[in-house]
Amino acid sequence: MSKQIAILGSSDSSLVGDISDTLCELGAELAKRKCIVLAGSCGGIGSIVSRAAKKEGGFTIGISLYQSRQEHNEEYGDEGECFDSFIYTGSGFKGRNVILVNSDDAVIAICGQIGTLNELTIAYDIGRPIGLLKDTGGIADTFGNVLRLFIVTGTQ
Amino acid sequence: MSKQIAILGSSDSSLVGDISDTLCELGAELAKRKCIVLAGSCGGIGSIVSRAAKKEGGFTIGISLYQSRQEHNEEYGDEGECFDSFIYTGSGFKGRNVILVNSDDAVIAICGQIGTLNELTIAYDIGRPIGLLKDTGGIADTFGNVLRLFIVTGTQ
Amino acid sequence: MSKQIAILGSSDSSLVGDISDTLCELGAELAKRKCIVLAGSCGGIGSIVSRAAKKEGGFTIGISLYQSRQEHNEEYGDEGECFDSFIYTGSGFKGRNVILVNSDDAVIAICGQIGTLNELTIAYDIGRPIGLLKDTGGIADTFGNVLRLFIVTGTQ
Amino acid sequence: MSKQIAILGSSDSSLVGDISDTLCELGAELAKRKCIVLAGSCGGIGSIVSRAAKKEGGFTIGISLYQSRQEHNEEYGDEGECFDSFIYTGSGFKGRNVILVNSDDAVIAICGQIGTLNELTIAYDIGRPIGLLKDTGGIADTFGNVLRLFIVTGTQ
Repeated sequence: MSKQIAILGSSDSSLVGDISDTLCELGAELAKRKCIVLAGSCGGIGSIVSRAAKKEGGFTIGISLYQSRQEHNEEYGDEGECFDSFIYTGSGFKGRNVILVNSDDAVIAICGQIGTLNELTIAYDIGRPIGLLKDTGGIADTFGNVLRLFIVTGTQ
Repeated sequence: MSKQIAILGSSDSSLVGDISDTLCELGAELAKRKCIVLAGSCGGIGSIVSRAAKKEGGFTIGISLYQSRQEHNEEYGDEGECFDSFIYTGSGFKGRNVILVNSDDAVIAICGQIGTLNELTIAYDIGRPIGLLKDTGGIADTFGNVLRLFIVTGTQ
Repeated sequence: MSKQIAILGSSDSSLVGDISDTLCELGAELAKRKCIVLAGSCGGIGSIVSRAAKKEGGFTIGISLYQSRQEHNEEYGDEGECFDSFIYTGSGFKGRNVILVNSDDAVIAICGQIGTLNELTIAYDIGRPIGLLKDTGGIADTFGNVLRLFIVTGTQ
Repeated sequence: MSKQIAILGSSDSSLVGDISDTLCELGAELAKRKCIVLAGSCGGIGSIVSRAAKKEGGFTIGISLYQSRQEHNEEYGDEGECFDSFIYTGSGFKGRNVILVNSDDAVIAICGQIGTLNELTIAYDIGRPIGLLKDTGGIADTFGNVLRLFIVTGTQ
């Protein structure tokens, strides 16, 4: 069975300028390894990696926060270039995050801010392997520090 | 973009004896037409159609009611023969039904009882095309009568 | 512990003209019996019964399909007259129905159409006691016939 | 309309020994101010504060991760001393967190670890006012540092 890898990260494409080659390499590599790529399908990091994976023949699934293709496309346009399939969770941003992280065998976080931290807390709590793409800025660089806050205080 | 077709129907395999050839033909035909097959991944009708579609090279996605592969497999075993990918909604039977029906372009109901009627009410209410495989027993044969109850009473 | 009773029925107030006294009596009676009244908080039947219950000192909870008070109020206005508390499920109409029915000890259906049938299939399938207010039109009058379709065909 | 306040924090009662007076004062104060108290209803911090609020005549709602009273009580026992009402989300721990935070006007975090951080990321992202009860250990003491990680790196 193929491994399912979720790509977590900022949906703001303006932040990804200088790492876009890296994102394309990552997508291509996941396709080569026959991984199924899951992403939140809101543009940005997840969509770029997914498009690269799909271009290399990988299978990609967009986990949408909306209830239907129509609702999704009104907000984000047709992302058919990025995703082979869409699941319409109808659960909003945060409910969607839960289903996205539940469904993967591992996550890779790139850049990202509070929304990505939300996803990482889910992945960490349910024991999913977490990859952090370093030097991409944001929470991918600092999640180790977040976890250390728990260790330092030594409390639940 | 591939059409996504959800297979609705009883998860009780003991009911499908004499229609199992039809189910396999349906799965193969969906694969040939490049449809992505979605099903609830609880065994029975949906799993049989999906297995046939996957065998013919179609792509199939199991929409699980559980939160993880581990939880799912404890209850239903590894359905890797039937599905290429699994989405773990963690939403229970009825919450899972919502996401399954949201995510398709059309549904096909076969046999089925109260759980399938639940899915058909969602499909009907959100305007998804509904196919009913006739003479398979259960709600697939009688959903037309259910709808007529609304028309006869003429009320909301 | 108080019993939690969910009121199911049409959200279209124009249909309830001649049963509005009955709805108010029902709400008052539920309040008198110290039941907590749950409803979908989209106006119509559920809101009328809830308002009557609240007026008599009962506690009422609106189970909203929206993610926040703001989203809810933009669509349905402030229903503070009807509900003491709101739960914002952010799960859409059909996901909200699941949480509404999960949370009650029994349901009472009044009038209603396909959305109410959706709720009744959940209640029936999970074994909740179902009350049908007769002669109110719609599915409340015909749900018995729907169930008989299963018995007649004798299949799953 | 009453304000709805969600209590976030560890479900492990063994951690709350020396702050239990503070928790009771908080619950009583929320009741006095006519706030409706929401909590995850898994024991620990949220249940202690809710019990104190209920004892003082406040109204308290347990937002359960389970699908039914029966499932909930099998795991956590009857928390009728703590809660006046239960909503059964059937959404698992993380899906439940989304509905809990969606439904409040403000959150108060006390002690807590990765699950509480998950809830705080939701509250922060959707703009809910956040209260942190200081010197209770865990994420309530360190969430400010988590947020500073975003500011220091200055990225999304």
